[in-house]
Amino acid sequence: MKKFSVGILGATGTVGQNYIKLLQDHPWFEIVDVAASPRSAGKTYVEAVKEKWQMPIPIPNKIKDLTVRDVQDFEKIPENLNFVFSAINMPTKEQIKEVEYSYAKKGFPLISNNSAHRWTPDVPMIIGEINHEHVNVIPIQQKNKDFTKGFIVVKPNCSLQSYLTPIYALEQAGYKVEKLIITTLQAVSGAGYPGVPSLDIVDNIVPYINGEEKKTEEEPLKNLGKIGKI
Amino acid sequence: MKKFSVGILGATGTVGQNYIKLLQDHPWFEIVDVAASPRSAGKTYVEAVKEKWQMPIPIPNKIKDLTVRDVQDFEKIPENLNFVFSAINMPTKEQIKEVEYSYAKKGFPLISNNSAHRWTPDVPMIIGEINHEHVNVIPIQQKNKDFTKGFIVVKPNCSLQSYLTPIYALEQAGYKVEKLIITTLQAVSGAGYPGVPSLDIVDNIVPYINGEEKKTEEEPLKNLGKIGKI
Amino acid sequence: MKKFSVGILGATGTVGQNYIKLLQDHPWFEIVDVAASPRSAGKTYVEAVKEKWQMPIPIPNKIKDLTVRDVQDFEKIPENLNFVFSAINMPTKEQIKEVEYSYAKKGFPLISNNSAHRWTPDVPMIIGEINHEHVNVIPIQQKNKDFTKGFIVVKPNCSLQSYLTPIYALEQAGYKVEKLIITTLQAVSGAGYPGVPSLDIVDNIVPYINGEEKKTEEEPLKNLGKIGKI
Amino acid sequence: MKKFSVGILGATGTVGQNYIKLLQDHPWFEIVDVAASPRSAGKTYVEAVKEKWQMPIPIPNKIKDLTVRDVQDFEKIPENLNFVFSAINMPTKEQIKEVEYSYAKKGFPLISNNSAHRWTPDVPMIIGEINHEHVNVIPIQQKNKDFTKGFIVVKPNCSLQSYLTPIYALEQAGYKVEKLIITTLQAVSGAGYPGVPSLDIVDNIVPYINGEEKKTEEEPLKNLGKIGKI
Repeated sequence: MKKFSVGILGATGTVGQNYIKLLQDHPWFEIVDVAASPRSAGKTYVEAVKEKWQMPIPIPNKIKDLTVRDVQDFEKIPENLNFVFSAINMPTKEQIKEVEYSYAKKGFPLISNNSAHRWTPDVPMIIGEINHEHVNVIPIQQKNKDFTKGFIVVKPNCSLQSYLTPIYALEQAGYKVEKLIITTLQAVSGAGYPGVPSLDIVDNIVPYINGEEKKTEEEPLKNLGKIGKI
Repeated sequence: MKKFSVGILGATGTVGQNYIKLLQDHPWFEIVDVAASPRSAGKTYVEAVKEKWQMPIPIPNKIKDLTVRDVQDFEKIPENLNFVFSAINMPTKEQIKEVEYSYAKKGFPLISNNSAHRWTPDVPMIIGEINHEHVNVIPIQQKNKDFTKGFIVVKPNCSLQSYLTPIYALEQAGYKVEKLIITTLQAVSGAGYPGVPSLDIVDNIVPYINGEEKKTEEEPLKNLGKIGKI
Repeated sequence: MKKFSVGILGATGTVGQNYIKLLQDHPWFEIVDVAASPRSAGKTYVEAVKEKWQMPIPIPNKIKDLTVRDVQDFEKIPENLNFVFSAINMPTKEQIKEVEYSYAKKGFPLISNNSAHRWTPDVPMIIGEINHEHVNVIPIQQKNKDFTKGFIVVKPNCSLQSYLTPIYALEQAGYKVEKLIITTLQAVSGAGYPGVPSLDIVDNIVPYINGEEKKTEEEPLKNLGKIGKI
Repeated sequence: MKKFSVGILGATGTVGQNYIKLLQDHPWFEIVDVAASPRSAGKTYVEAVKEKWQMPIPIPNKIKDLTVRDVQDFEKIPENLNFVFSAINMPTKEQIKEVEYSYAKKGFPLISNNSAHRWTPDVPMIIGEINHEHVNVIPIQQKNKDFTKGFIVVKPNCSLQSYLTPIYALEQAGYKVEKLIITTLQAVSGAGYPGVPSLDIVDNIVPYINGEEKKTEEEPLKNLGKIGKI
């Protein structure tokens, strides 16, 4: 089987490193492009990431020597690239939105881990087991935005990925769910690196994540939504 | 007994907070001035420090409403100030040195927690139990630097404060110490806040502190040194 | 003011140590008796507890040299003892019940931290702010059990002590509470010493405490209950 | 290649579980026997170990249904057993020594993780990279003890396994080592399960392991020793 050639945007951050860990041996995907901020651009991946590597495996050999591309340097995108996974981190959501649009505009399907486009109306937010049919929004998105082959798809907040699937299964089995009262106990890794200071968490629990409650209330409505007539 | 009116430079950081915790009820000292970066200047202390307060006690009431002064705004130094404790943090040691000099130049004795002046030849680095007689260097410092009433005194690296005292006591008791092999197990609080990321330290030990080995080798030589003839 | 002379049953365990920490400087109480298992009996308190002392203060001097009494050696109860706090730990609840009865029978009021008597019908389970009037059950208990001066009073499970008070306040203020959904995040200290193994809890959360759910459901009913006509 | 059929003595404890984790997929070894205390005997492995399983992998399927044998029930030793790994834990070292002798006496080579036989003169204590030639003591041991095919071999204390190899390499390379000053920072897993209470170690370091210093001083002498003429 021929593998898909994929790129990782934001490849040096914690989420980007996780993409590398998960995809490095994957039967379907071959990582051919690692992009990050101008600060890392031009360095080999191993140079760019070195002391920040957080994964429980060594940096894969085939990734080490890839040259990191500036995520906004579209000239250097490898010709054979099939699509990209986005884990870019920028000061504002607007900047992230714009970079992600640029990739779609240039013909690349983009699957994003970011929250920036979760509420863009024609961007589907998908949990495979629940609303995979939302991919049917893609042609509408392409028409709206004047994309040819490219498009944007996102995933929801991490904690609801865990509990929304069984909720959906209950609904499917005929048990109507009227109300959810949700308490999440989340690992510090969710905050990325450097993330939570040890002085805040050793022997303690941090009871609040900024923005989490709003996402918890709102995002399931999109995941569980139906596509109407157009 | 009349208390000394003291100021804390760098009062919003972790070391500054510790000064406040330690001095707030002290029989000798009254905190009358809290100074920090321009970002905090003009705010009340409680506003400036709020979510960063790390001490195991609430912010003392008499400190809460003090207006934070810009550490480089010498116009606003209270008239009755007797001396200052310095815990300022600036991008370079040269900047710290200069600010600390300015206070001494303006007539204020300054006791610093910083490492910036530890190797300034005429600045004594004192552990009270060991080399308090190094205060005799102060008149020479004042003459060299053209200070009138002001001067600078520093303390050594924190870990050697703990083990150098018994070493000195052994020496005094006639047990000549020829070599020290030192392993320190240091709390994360030593790195300040935010300091050590939890992802680095939970279930782990960080085996290296940048600069610590050099300080450990060199600073005891100054503490244990004798003042020569001049 | 003359202090009450009190005894602590189970004085060497973690709860007993907490009683000592809390009462050692108390304006109303004087600890005159420390009782524990036969293994500790006859030793001084400091000998009996030494490496097991978990409190953040040193063992108080006036407690150190008290001779530990076997909790079932009623001959050696000090004559001036006014009442006892019970933190005894025994293999079965029946054994605890019996020892606690014995003290009441011998004329001592006993306030117990144990769960053994929480559901004994005529033993009041009190949260001072909520149902202090349940002390009116004591004369009935004394009559039922043929106690003269002695009696037994207990407190509920620790976690509900924290949240039941505001619930009660809401009720008192006219906000009827129909349902509680409770998630507690409890410190490892709740399990006593040695308690929770570090291999189970470092970098982890233990999601279940045996018996806690049942206590959470049932005990508030007794605390919030009214004494009927008899 | 035909695999060796091996047994694990003390198979339900933390060290025994590690043996299972390490050997379950091993190209040379097939676990055919799991032995433990009478309390576990007769149960399937999964029943015997269930809530105590500490490994980061599930209990291997081929181990789950093995019936746990009483480690002192020699009748039930599988006929095809080639040799045993010992991780037995008993109240005294003398008891461990005796059980381990019994296996050797009955014809089984026994490789032990226990410290019980480390100082038995004719039992070699081997670090493969350093003193593998100490296996030449085995025939002498067999003659002394009247063993036919069986024998006992042990390994040293875990911490010295880590640092003695480079020390030996330095010696081999001509750098004579005159003195070692050793500070070990050991994980809580070294104490087994339940092992170190969380109240002792969270936010803390336990500075002392009973017996460790003596082992550290003495065991390297045996590992680094040479077999003399006999």
